[in-house]
Parts: sequence; structure tokens; C-alpha cells
Amino acid sequence: MPVPGPGYSITVRVEAPPSASAAGDLAGAIGRAGGVITAFDVVESHADRIVVDITCNALSSDHAQEVQDVLESLPGVRVRKVSDRTFLVHLGGKIEVASKVALANRDDLSRAYTPGVARVCTAIAENPEDARRLTVKRNSVAVVTDGSAVLGLGNIGPAASLPVMEGKAALFKKFAGVNAWPVCLDTQDTEEIIRTVELMAPVYGGINLEDIAAPRCFEIEARLREKLDIPVFHDDQHGTAIVVLAALRNALRVVDKDLSECRVVVCGVGAAGSAIIRLLQHKHPGDIVAVDVDGIVHRERGDADANLRSIAETTNSDNRTGSLSDAVKGADVFIGVSAPNLLSAEDAAAMNPGGIVFALANPDPEIDPLEAQKHAKVVATGRSDYPNQINNVLAFPGVFRGLLDAHAREITDEMMVAAANAVADVVDGERVNASFIVPSVFDSTVAPAVAEAVRKASPAVED
Amino acid sequence: MPVPGPGYSITVRVEAPPSASAAGDLAGAIGRAGGVITAFDVVESHADRIVVDITCNALSSDHAQEVQDVLESLPGVRVRKVSDRTFLVHLGGKIEVASKVALANRDDLSRAYTPGVARVCTAIAENPEDARRLTVKRNSVAVVTDGSAVLGLGNIGPAASLPVMEGKAALFKKFAGVNAWPVCLDTQDTEEIIRTVELMAPVYGGINLEDIAAPRCFEIEARLREKLDIPVFHDDQHGTAIVVLAALRNALRVVDKDLSECRVVVCGVGAAGSAIIRLLQHKHPGDIVAVDVDGIVHRERGDADANLRSIAETTNSDNRTGSLSDAVKGADVFIGVSAPNLLSAEDAAAMNPGGIVFALANPDPEIDPLEAQKHAKVVATGRSDYPNQINNVLAFPGVFRGLLDAHAREITDEMMVAAANAVADVVDGERVNASFIVPSVFDSTVAPAVAEAVRKASPAVED
Repeated sequence: MPVPGPGYSITVRVEAPPSASAAGDLAGAIGRAGGVITAFDVVESHADRIVVDITCNALSSDHAQEVQDVLESLPGVRVRKVSDRTFLVHLGGKIEVASKVALANRDDLSRAYTPGVARVCTAIAENPEDARRLTVKRNSVAVVTDGSAVLGLGNIGPAASLPVMEGKAALFKKFAGVNAWPVCLDTQDTEEIIRTVELMAPVYGGINLEDIAAPRCFEIEARLREKLDIPVFHDDQHGTAIVVLAALRNALRVVDKDLSECRVVVCGVGAAGSAIIRLLQHKHPGDIVAVDVDGIVHRERGDADANLRSIAETTNSDNRTGSLSDAVKGADVFIGVSAPNLLSAEDAAAMNPGGIVFALANPDPEIDPLEAQKHAKVVATGRSDYPNQINNVLAFPGVFRGLLDAHAREITDEMMVAAANAVADVVDGERVNASFIVPSVFDSTVAPAVAEAVRKASPAVED
Repeated sequence: MPVPGPGYSITVRVEAPPSASAAGDLAGAIGRAGGVITAFDVVESHADRIVVDITCNALSSDHAQEVQDVLESLPGVRVRKVSDRTFLVHLGGKIEVASKVALANRDDLSRAYTPGVARVCTAIAENPEDARRLTVKRNSVAVVTDGSAVLGLGNIGPAASLPVMEGKAALFKKFAGVNAWPVCLDTQDTEEIIRTVELMAPVYGGINLEDIAAPRCFEIEARLREKLDIPVFHDDQHGTAIVVLAALRNALRVVDKDLSECRVVVCGVGAAGSAIIRLLQHKHPGDIVAVDVDGIVHRERGDADANLRSIAETTNSDNRTGSLSDAVKGADVFIGVSAPNLLSAEDAAAMNPGGIVFALANPDPEIDPLEAQKHAKVVATGRSDYPNQINNVLAFPGVFRGLLDAHAREITDEMMVAAANAVADVVDGERVNASFIVPSVFDSTVAPAVAEAVRKASPAVED
């Protein structure tokens, strides 16, 4: 059951009578309405009234309205203003462009701008590789989306996706010092997206594709990788795959199994599921069984989708058929990147002993993690309010830090496997347990470790 | 004659014998080679040698090499390293993306990113105008180029143009707090440029076109103005026109003439010249005579270019023909945005008394300003080493500040005229004189004054 959290936090300014019980009355009313108070500040005190700012976490917009209604219903209390703290954080945007150079006087201007800049331009015109050294390209990544598959919200378009891309850019800077800039494209045409990214690429040292719907995202990524001389990384695919691989590595340590002896069920074969399967194959699992809305993916299904056909050909060595329940029976690992409540308690109970369940559907997982824990040894979700949060922020900042530092022209599966190992190894052997298979998203050692692993796995590039 | 300046400044690390005259010998040698020393730091001192960092301004790469050679030729002196200070300023780029929000803990993350961000996305999906309030769009401008007409360097392409666009972005921030981001496009096809800018527009509150060659720039700007609901401004045209108009307003005060009685010759009918003519027409000059490589633009010339035909139809009311010399004879104002040394001393002498000469070709003006001063009452150039520098940085930061603050959907000629008046009026009546017709580029009151003028001239937009 969801609990009130800071993602929905409001500050209510109320006038109340100056009685000795005023504070208690207000707090009690909010508590009865299910709000969780995080701050209580008296901002004015008069003979006839007090004015108080109460900050509290709520569940939803409707719930915030209920809290407000309950306060209004108290005798003598008047709600003057309700501020939504989340909206306050986003006001005017979450990122900005800053100048790194002094521009205080004429000499500064002569070097950073005209006439001095002309020599820097000429140097790059004569040797284009110098752009990786003498411009922001050295440290910049485009966060590219068409707004077609944003969070759990779906196809909300480029303008409405911008708050997510800005948040991503803020995380890039915070965790890895990377300059990421949102590129929210007002088209969902595959060819137009490819061409636009190609045309704007000169400014960037890497492309992070984000929240682009499958199967379009596969072609866009593949074609851009062919065309560009900078790495192209679809975070929904590869970021997720890297963190899942990391978590699985540590989960297997906890249950003391070898991946080569495990059957892994991947439920959901969209962008994330497909990438997880492909990266996992580098680790040679016993078998992988993919499941989508039509059940187990197998070679006789005759899928029209090229992605599904390719997965059918490289997984399911026993050529199993049937439903998700058939797939998980006797399986060792369940990885869900699909939809809420697809995995029943009976399904989890039917897995092999020492089962591993990653229920990553957001915000509601494939199985309630508390239920899953009754049957599986290790459980992980995408949520921050349970142990073992599988969060892409463990991967993408360090991955791009490493790519940019290596002046990499592409990203290979080997680099991604190295990144996964690095994430996993931050949790050293002594600390690994069923509730701690991945480091905290705030562990500042993760991104540098990932960056170093990616850099070392990168083919040497002359500087 | 050019003088050594900070646009070409080198730091030379030399080893020299520890004699009493060492410093004098080094400084003397650099002086004889024509270098100008700006810093002299002893970094090591040993019994057998001293090590000195000498920073000096030079004229060019070749000249810097001469300075180095002269030092090497001194007895016992060895040059260990030469650093170019301009390149050091550009290393790794001149701008960066910074986060405006705290991301220190889980609560911060819940508000700035998931799950809180979903509500902000939903708000924008329901009311797209909210993007101007809740995202970086509110304060962001794209600096768009195809690298086809960069400074005096010409068609150097998108990667080599990036140092200029970054410099521009740094100036946008420094003078007006605007987040400008470089968009250097790897195409010079008009249709592709238009479509690409259209597709990436959701992130921006304005488009600054930059260093795009004429006549392509005219169509790109006109078509984007039709398509987009944010203002589109080609700085090479309108930025220049605004500052020229401002300078002319004050120059006319100095010579005590009324524009309605003046004949204005505009030499050069590319992007800048065309925009100057069009903006000037709002001020109703006595007449404008445009001159290009084929001489005076007149209605019988039968130009194929639509821009030239439109200028022929709206200028030159006496239907003059002939050369630049014919045009300036008896003229009151010369505005050159063309090429070096086109205006002779005789031409300047043949102008009306109280002549105004703006010789803006860069880096070498249409006439040596010292020569022009012998004949004209007010002289301005694009150079920083003469009085009256006509520099776009007086216009573009404040113009976009005003546009963004007004949530403007377009920029009108009226707004640009208002901006020009605001630039001019920063130099109040008492301070205006022949050597001070425009404020310093470092005058921090200019951008706010321009912004306010643009905001007031903007049609009211609901917030």
C-alpha cells in the first residue's frame, strides 16, 4: 500500500485562532486525513490569530485536497494558500547554462570571443578532432527523446517530457560532472528523428536516447550507431540492462548459484527486456525464457516483429511454450519489466529454491515485494521504498563519464558488461546480502568506478 | 597598423643563466621582436639557472614563433614550453550545464525526478503553455548555426563554429542571465535547417540564428517565424541593425541633424546591410542609397535576387545610379558592412559637412578610422581598439531577456526599434560626443534597459 511521500508534498498556509490547542488541532486533523507532517512553522502571531505554514506529504492531488478540506472544516481556521513543493522545485527549470570563463574585461573578451576565438575555430577547421579538446563537445551529452514513452505516462509528447529530461541532465551533472542537454523532438517519425540527431551531433560527445517507444527505439539506435562517430546509448534499454546485470551478479552470490546453471525468465520484451536478454547472453546463462503478452516467446510463434524473432532464435533452448506460469515453474530467476501484478504468489512459490525475483514494473511491480519475499530468497524492485532499488542512475552517469574521458566513438557490449561488474563490485563480498545487492543511488563511489571500467574496456583512441 | 593584443597572448617558460642582467636581456629581446610583455614571473631560481614564465602579447602565430626564436638565440637561454593563453581559455569548452536543484537525498530526488516529476509532466501535457513556467524553456535560447558564415572566416562548418557559439552563450549568460545553448547543424540545406530547428524548438523560448550565410538566412528566418510560436532573431541581421540604429541616433545628436533630412548610404547588402536598411526605414530617413559590388542598387538594374529587388523598390527615391563614390557624394551618413578599404579618403571628403562614417567591416574597416576622422565628424567601427565600437553584444542579451520575460511569441520591428532607442539612451545627452555614441560593452545597465524596452513593446501575453 502506498504511503504519503515527498513526491507529493504541499505547504499549506493557514490562519487559526490563537488557542493553546491550535497547533495540536491542526496536526491532529492532518493526521486523521492521512497526511504526514514534515514541517510546522508559525509565520505570524497576533492577538486574534496565528498564521502557520504546515508542510506535509500526501498521496495524490485528491488527497492533498482532502487534507485542505479537513483543515477548512476546523472552527475558525482559514486556508490562505497551498503551495506544491514539487512544482516549486521545477519552476523556471531545473538546469541552467553557466559560463566557465571570465568575461570581466576587454582582455577576457578578446580571448574567449573575438578576435581570439577565430584561431580556435581555424584549428578545429584544420583538425576536426580538436573539437573534442577545445569545445564543450568534450564533456557534453544530448538527452534525446520524442516524448513517446515517458516514465509510466506514455506518449505525452516533447514539451511534457522536458521535466524528465532536465531531471536526467541534473543527475548527469550531480553524479558524473557531465553536461547533458535536453533535446525534445517534435516528431515521432523514425527517419526524422535519426536525421535530426545526426544533424545536431557536432556539439556532443555522446547521445543518450531516452523514453522513445519500442520498436522505433531499436532502429533509431542501430542506425545512429552506424552514422555517428560518437557513442549512442538508449538508457531505457542499456542503462536498465547494466543495473539488472549488476544486481543479478550479486543476487547469485547471495543464493550461491552459478548463472550457467540458472534458467532466467524475462517477462516483457520491449526496450528494457530485449536489452537485458542481449546483455545477459554475454554471461552465458543456463537458459533464458522470454515472455510477452502472448506468452512464452518460441521459434514456432511466427512473430512478425524482427526483434521478437531474433530473441526467439537465441533463447529458450528447450523450445518451451505456454504462459508466464509455465515459464517460471522451476526457474531460478524472474526479471519483470512489464506490468503490475502479472506474477502471482503461486508462480513465485513454483520457482526453484533460492529464487531471485526482480519485479521492476513502475510504479507498481509485477508482484507485491512483500508477497514475493515469502517465496523468493532475493527480491528487487524499481521502487525507492523497498530494499534493492534497480535504478538507472547507478549506470548512465558513470557510463558516459567513461565514454567521454576515453573519447570513445562507440559503446560496445563489453563496455556495458564491464560497467555492470563495476556497479556490482561496489558492494563488496562482505556486505552483500539479500537486502543489499546494489549500492545506494547516493553512493558517490559508483559513478567513478563505472567510468573507470568503461574507460578501460574502451578501445584506445588517440587524443 | 595592428598592435599585439590579448587575442594572441603566449606564455613562454625559459631557462636562463642567473646573471644580474638576465631579466633585462629577456625583456629587451622580446621588445625588439615586437612582443608586449604583460607578466614576468620567476618560477625557479638555482645556482646555475633561473626559470621564468614570460607572458606577452603577439600579433599572430608567426609573430609568436619569431618571439620564441629570438629568445632561443640568446646565449645560454633555452625555451622549455610555449602555452597559448587563448587556447587555454577554450580547453574543454567555455560553457557548462549546471543543476539548479538540490539532489542530496531521497526527498530531493523524489521531487526533482521520479516519482514527483510525473505530476509536472502531466500538468504540461494538459496545458502546454505551462512549459514556459515549469521548464528551462522559460529562460532558454538556441544559438543556431550551420557554420556557413562564421566571423570573417567564412564557411568553416558546424564543428569549427562551436567556439563562437559557446562564446555567444557565455555572453548571453554574463549580460542577461539567459541560458543559451549551441545548436551547430551539420547541413547547409535550407529545408533541413528549417525542419531541424522546428523539431527541436520545444525546449527553447527563443531562437537566435547566427552566422548563416545570405541569402539562405533570409528564407530560414522568415519561414521559422511563420512556423514557430517563439521569437526568431538572426543576430547578424537584427543585432547589428539595432546597434547601428542606436549609434546613428546619438551620432545625429552630435552633428545636430535630423534623420529626415539625411541621405544614408549603406554599403553592403548582405544579411547585416539589408536588416539595417529595413530597420532604418521605420525612422523615415531623407533617403537611403544601397550599394553592393555592382554599384548603387536601383530599380532598373534587374537584380534576380528577391532581397535586392525589394530593397531597390523601397530605397533610392532619386533613382541614382553609379558607383559607391557617386553614392556618397553629398551624403550625410555612410554605413559600411562590406569589405576592407572600399571607401577612399576622397569619398569621405566628398560627403556633406558633419558627416557620419560607420566603417564596420571586420577586422579591417571600409576606411582607416584615423583617415575618416579627418573628413567626418563622427566615426565608428567594429573594432575594440577605436572609439565607438558597434558591437552586437549591446543588443542580443537584453533583447532576448525582454522576449523571454514577456513570454513573447514573436519579435516585431517595433520591439527592435525600442531596443535601439534604449541602447542609445544609456548614453545620456550630456555624455554624448563624437567619441562616445554607444555605451561600453561592459556597461551593465545596457541589457536591463534593452530588456525593459523590448518587454514594454511586446504585445501583452497571458502568463
